[in-house]
Amino acid sequence: MGRDGVDNGWITFSNVRIPRTFMMMRFARVDKNGNVTQPPLAQLAYGALIGGRVSMAADSFQVAKKFITIAVRYGAARRQFSSEDGQPETKLLDYTYHQRRLLPLLAYTYAMRTAADGLYDMYYNATEKLANTNVSDKQGLQSAIEDIKELFSLSAGLKAFSTWGCGHIIDEARQSCGGHGYSSYNAFGPGYADWIVNTIWEGDNNVLTLSAGRALVQSGVALRKGKRLGGPVEYLSRSEELKNAGLGSNHDSALRDPATIIKSWESICSQAINSTVDKFLELTQKENLSLTQAFEQLSLQRFQIARIHTRLYVIRSFFERVEKTQDGPLKKAVLDVALLFALWSIENESGIFLKYNFFTPDDLDTITELVNEYCRKVRVNAIGLTDAFNLSDYYINSAIGNYNGDFYKSYFEKVTRRNPPEEIRPPYYDSLMRPFFDRTNDEA
Amino acid sequence: MGRDGVDNGWITFSNVRIPRTFMMMRFARVDKNGNVTQPPLAQLAYGALIGGRVSMAADSFQVAKKFITIAVRYGAARRQFSSEDGQPETKLLDYTYHQRRLLPLLAYTYAMRTAADGLYDMYYNATEKLANTNVSDKQGLQSAIEDIKELFSLSAGLKAFSTWGCGHIIDEARQSCGGHGYSSYNAFGPGYADWIVNTIWEGDNNVLTLSAGRALVQSGVALRKGKRLGGPVEYLSRSEELKNAGLGSNHDSALRDPATIIKSWESICSQAINSTVDKFLELTQKENLSLTQAFEQLSLQRFQIARIHTRLYVIRSFFERVEKTQDGPLKKAVLDVALLFALWSIENESGIFLKYNFFTPDDLDTITELVNEYCRKVRVNAIGLTDAFNLSDYYINSAIGNYNGDFYKSYFEKVTRRNPPEEIRPPYYDSLMRPFFDRTNDEA
Repeated sequence: MGRDGVDNGWITFSNVRIPRTFMMMRFARVDKNGNVTQPPLAQLAYGALIGGRVSMAADSFQVAKKFITIAVRYGAARRQFSSEDGQPETKLLDYTYHQRRLLPLLAYTYAMRTAADGLYDMYYNATEKLANTNVSDKQGLQSAIEDIKELFSLSAGLKAFSTWGCGHIIDEARQSCGGHGYSSYNAFGPGYADWIVNTIWEGDNNVLTLSAGRALVQSGVALRKGKRLGGPVEYLSRSEELKNAGLGSNHDSALRDPATIIKSWESICSQAINSTVDKFLELTQKENLSLTQAFEQLSLQRFQIARIHTRLYVIRSFFERVEKTQDGPLKKAVLDVALLFALWSIENESGIFLKYNFFTPDDLDTITELVNEYCRKVRVNAIGLTDAFNLSDYYINSAIGNYNGDFYKSYFEKVTRRNPPEEIRPPYYDSLMRPFFDRTNDEA
Repeated sequence: MGRDGVDNGWITFSNVRIPRTFMMMRFARVDKNGNVTQPPLAQLAYGALIGGRVSMAADSFQVAKKFITIAVRYGAARRQFSSEDGQPETKLLDYTYHQRRLLPLLAYTYAMRTAADGLYDMYYNATEKLANTNVSDKQGLQSAIEDIKELFSLSAGLKAFSTWGCGHIIDEARQSCGGHGYSSYNAFGPGYADWIVNTIWEGDNNVLTLSAGRALVQSGVALRKGKRLGGPVEYLSRSEELKNAGLGSNHDSALRDPATIIKSWESICSQAINSTVDKFLELTQKENLSLTQAFEQLSLQRFQIARIHTRLYVIRSFFERVEKTQDGPLKKAVLDVALLFALWSIENESGIFLKYNFFTPDDLDTITELVNEYCRKVRVNAIGLTDAFNLSDYYINSAIGNYNGDFYKSYFEKVTRRNPPEEIRPPYYDSLMRPFFDRTNDEA
């Protein structure tokens, strides 16, 4: 599909003996008599994959920003239909629905960056701690393992949803450019083919998501046994309070308040996780299913809680970064971007918000209006927000996505450069071929 | 991206005079003095595009069936991890989540066929009527125009959602095959690149969807003015009754009953359309917005109602086809497929079903269980349901999707055939290159 020349296949061994000492035995061990010692945590065996996942969450931002830039620039320059007779045609990016297609994805692009930064911090801390821990130090190892567990599950969720998110951004950005997006002059085709492998390697996204969901259920079970939770799942400890949280008397202003929005996500995430934990305990304790069977039966629930928990993490990281930004017009502009992302995310999960009764149907109508409103606000800064990525025209590699916005000119130049208009018809064209091909002769 | 060699661009005219008589003037006319007579219905000008849209709804089925077949065959043959120690590894398609990924899409593939058939019937009837109507026959033309309107809006929705649906099926089927799906030996890459242009040509999918949504609002407005509605929007006339419809006393059996499921879709569709009509009338009558402005402001709502109305049409067409099938085990098998499709579709629109209070959160939990259950039922027949498409291995063109299911063997043969293992290293390889490249020398 992409990455031609990179051969991946499979390998099958029959009766091949590999010396025991060829095995890397820091955690899992095999002695001379063939006795296997399992690592203290299964995930340690996959530890080397975590670095890859962390960087793929960051890559998602790096790749998405290129394609959202092309689409925003094209949408801000291309006009189609006028809304009133005699008026100039409207720019695509001034249409409500075009804004809704692209601007939340521009916001998502920003959000992926802040989330990846947070994940990198966790990764460096956790791997340093593990590297500095002696394997014989049981207590130290246990503490390092707890951190790795958190990292494993968060990086699984972020890798999956960021790489899917980036694939979606490339695809939607392409579609928003119509036929030009499909054209080989505009970078989208190879960009998608090259990127989309990220959804299935270094841990298939679906498998990773299910495993992140399993970890969330395990955290919920541990909490009920009295364990203290920290890190990204800390909010589960506040489940009771969150269940009864609400919007207060002024819904409209509450829905523009980052703290309230974060609380709304924490509320539905904790309720969804607790409901899955309830079902899990019922299946394992009352219906005597094995852990594997119970997790299997709760596959959809695991997928859903991983999806919303990961989204909560991304939203929180975005708001926290905005909070740390120096006061001024820039801060206001990025706060609008963060609010757009968070409110649009609520709209996309309306089923879960309604199920847990955090919002009423009327609130959701308000949120739809707010998404429209924040789209209009972000529209004003859309070119600035994409120019800020500071991508060269060479890197953009798309005639319709150049910095100067004069896309018909650069497009025509690119097409002409690659297809120099030279005479390629044979000398006998006029005497022999033209009379055969040209239908004006029929009319003569 | 795909379709290399098919050049599409744009054309710009400056000061070019085109003779008036070059214009095709069946409906729109320009007289010698430059006076323009608009066609009696704007859509007539686009009439020629309708045939393309109708056939693309059918094409969506034709293309989707190839890729869902590959994924189902691979999932039924490939094993990964055993659920209990010492047991054989589990087939991918026996995992709950893998079933949920593929089997509703297999059901959707079947559904797209029944929907396209219904659309073709409408198309032939409406275009025949129009062709047989004399332009001076005002009443006859009006009746033909009503049919064309219905056809225009239904074909717009079905073209958009079927072509997106097929793109999604190719993509999800590919991802479900892991790295093999990405491999150029397995048909997905070129298949996607070739197909996905269908989402943006012959009417861009988003624009078509918004226009289908506008037509639904117009139908709702016309109904309030006393007009009788027929065809796919007939259910709007029953809005009051549908609003108060419910599941009766036995929810579990009601949720397995096609008539009740269709009614549930009619209920939420009519409520969503009516709510949009209310807003539309408020904007145009109380807030004095122009029709264009009001439609623009209701873009999201138009998109949503077009999406669920189109899905209702597809579900209904599937159940009606099943109903016409001769009684017997085949009928039971396809009824399970139709139920899976309809219930999974409800799950995907849970936000709207909860908003209009047709189902309770508990009902939705039941529906999640039912989707799992019908996945297991359809799993039993999955190979039969895909073999029924009767696609040759040549057409499938994918090593992992061959009829016999022996994919490692056919894969290896294909790879070997395309890359014959001949000696391509130069004669000086052993003496000069090998010592340079081979790191075993370092250890010597």
